[in-house]
Amino acid sequence: MSTNNLPVLAVDLGGTKILGTLVDNEKITYSYLTPTMASGGPETVIRRICDVIDHILSQNGRSLSQIHSISIAAAGGIDTKKGIVTLSPSLPGWHNIPLVDIVRKNFDTKVYIIHDANASALGELCYGAGKGARNMVYMTVSTGVGGGIIIDGKEYEGASGAAGEIGHMTIDVNGPKCNCGNTGCLEMLASGTAMAREAIRRINAGEKTSLTSMVSGETDAISAREIGAAASQGDALAGSVIKQAATYLGIGMVNLVNIFNPEMIVVGGGVSNLGEMLLSPARELVKQRAFPISAGAVQIIRAQLGEDSGVIGAAVKAKQKN
Amino acid sequence: MSTNNLPVLAVDLGGTKILGTLVDNEKITYSYLTPTMASGGPETVIRRICDVIDHILSQNGRSLSQIHSISIAAAGGIDTKKGIVTLSPSLPGWHNIPLVDIVRKNFDTKVYIIHDANASALGELCYGAGKGARNMVYMTVSTGVGGGIIIDGKEYEGASGAAGEIGHMTIDVNGPKCNCGNTGCLEMLASGTAMAREAIRRINAGEKTSLTSMVSGETDAISAREIGAAASQGDALAGSVIKQAATYLGIGMVNLVNIFNPEMIVVGGGVSNLGEMLLSPARELVKQRAFPISAGAVQIIRAQLGEDSGVIGAAVKAKQKN
Repeated sequence: MSTNNLPVLAVDLGGTKILGTLVDNEKITYSYLTPTMASGGPETVIRRICDVIDHILSQNGRSLSQIHSISIAAAGGIDTKKGIVTLSPSLPGWHNIPLVDIVRKNFDTKVYIIHDANASALGELCYGAGKGARNMVYMTVSTGVGGGIIIDGKEYEGASGAAGEIGHMTIDVNGPKCNCGNTGCLEMLASGTAMAREAIRRINAGEKTSLTSMVSGETDAISAREIGAAASQGDALAGSVIKQAATYLGIGMVNLVNIFNPEMIVVGGGVSNLGEMLLSPARELVKQRAFPISAGAVQIIRAQLGEDSGVIGAAVKAKQKN
Repeated sequence: MSTNNLPVLAVDLGGTKILGTLVDNEKITYSYLTPTMASGGPETVIRRICDVIDHILSQNGRSLSQIHSISIAAAGGIDTKKGIVTLSPSLPGWHNIPLVDIVRKNFDTKVYIIHDANASALGELCYGAGKGARNMVYMTVSTGVGGGIIIDGKEYEGASGAAGEIGHMTIDVNGPKCNCGNTGCLEMLASGTAMAREAIRRINAGEKTSLTSMVSGETDAISAREIGAAASQGDALAGSVIKQAATYLGIGMVNLVNIFNPEMIVVGGGVSNLGEMLLSPARELVKQRAFPISAGAVQIIRAQLGEDSGVIGAAVKAKQKN
């Protein structure tokens, strides 16, 4: 019997949460969220992944023969061919962990792995904001800036599955050093972390803002969410911090538009919840600075699937493999 | 009879020269070089292209049925589907010129057009430095910086045939304005023009260099060629100008490596004749700053086909179309 109509058991392995789901095309028919407990190291986390899979199967009364496959979206360096997590900044102790083999040893079915940003890109392409695009760049803006590239309707992985690190292109050669070893990376200037850093810097320099009372003086608690809320209420500092990050984001987009001439740039990740406050100045910059033929061809829009894009994309990938 | 074993009549239309050839796979069996006379406008240039084609056919005693097709590599904005040169900075007066239709009206055979950097990328991929690569970025460094992108062994054109403008990615957000409307573009910092500009600036600021006597005091005559010659003879200013450009070029490469995770970056164009003076510092920077997995996967090497890459690639494209 063909398994192709069966749902995929799709897992999104993040640094703080594991999202386990049953995915039936674009529909998530069952989902279960649990902490990753990443500090416990690979053994703990792998046990938790297997528990999530067991839980989903039992709660839905399904045996392994009643799912299409298990597909895991994970952050970090992923060797998709060998099924190995080579390293992951958000998962301490993960170095060359053969996750696919380990999961397959526990569950005798097909097991796939995909880089989480690539999964989100595929999810948005097939069932979200990117529908109909042939060439698309997915940008995720949250604590960092990541990306997934779609070429000719397919995930682009590069020579070793590491393509799409658009957050680590230098846009300011004299800018701050990034943890990645590079300088003036987009991520250092346009991520949620960058916004918070800039807001705190300006507060420490004596500028007044409603952010201070919003976090009861605990400036370390400031994140893009608070900055967005303050900006919506007319706070000048918050508004200007967002505008600055949006400008940097726009410069990154100009680069991507000139390089890829894509039909779409789809922006997801937590910081994309700032919506037009973030996207409108970025879009304007693309119009002003990118090559007119490419600027005219690209739509820059928000992602639609939110935190589900990873599992939906992981399911798409699994079905493509089959 | 299949035309697939016949040579392609391939033309490289540049701002200063038209190179007309017969191309038999990687071999140029006949070539003819003539000035473009671009200042004469489209009509003059088109007449010259047709004359070149006539000349090649008659000199080789071939009728149109004895060539595979005519394939033209051209700089600028090219709509390859419609066969139109939408605009070309190096060809004054060229706006939406339906070059393919015009040439076909004069020569009743298949006529193709391809962006010159994409042609060079294809040429190097199939018969030059890029042999065996699946994913490759071709960079041309001359008066400007351009590029051609190979994805999965094929030319990547983007949504409107305008992809690959890697010379116009911002790497210095506070850098000089570029003619393209963008700021701090790689081309403004790493091209031959940028090198000459920097050398002249430093000479005007009073620095001593053998370049001054090399051009008999006519500093406007300084180009990357003179700077390379002076550097080879140990001139400190020339050496430092090349080092600076190579550093910027390396930063551009870091971006491309992090984004594309390619197997190869192939560097062509006149300035690439500087060889290791240019490539070695750039390569070093990629090793230091790009993601290790991608930095380890990429070879950064000189192009092999020189000025022939455009016609050879144009011929490859024509055969692929058929």
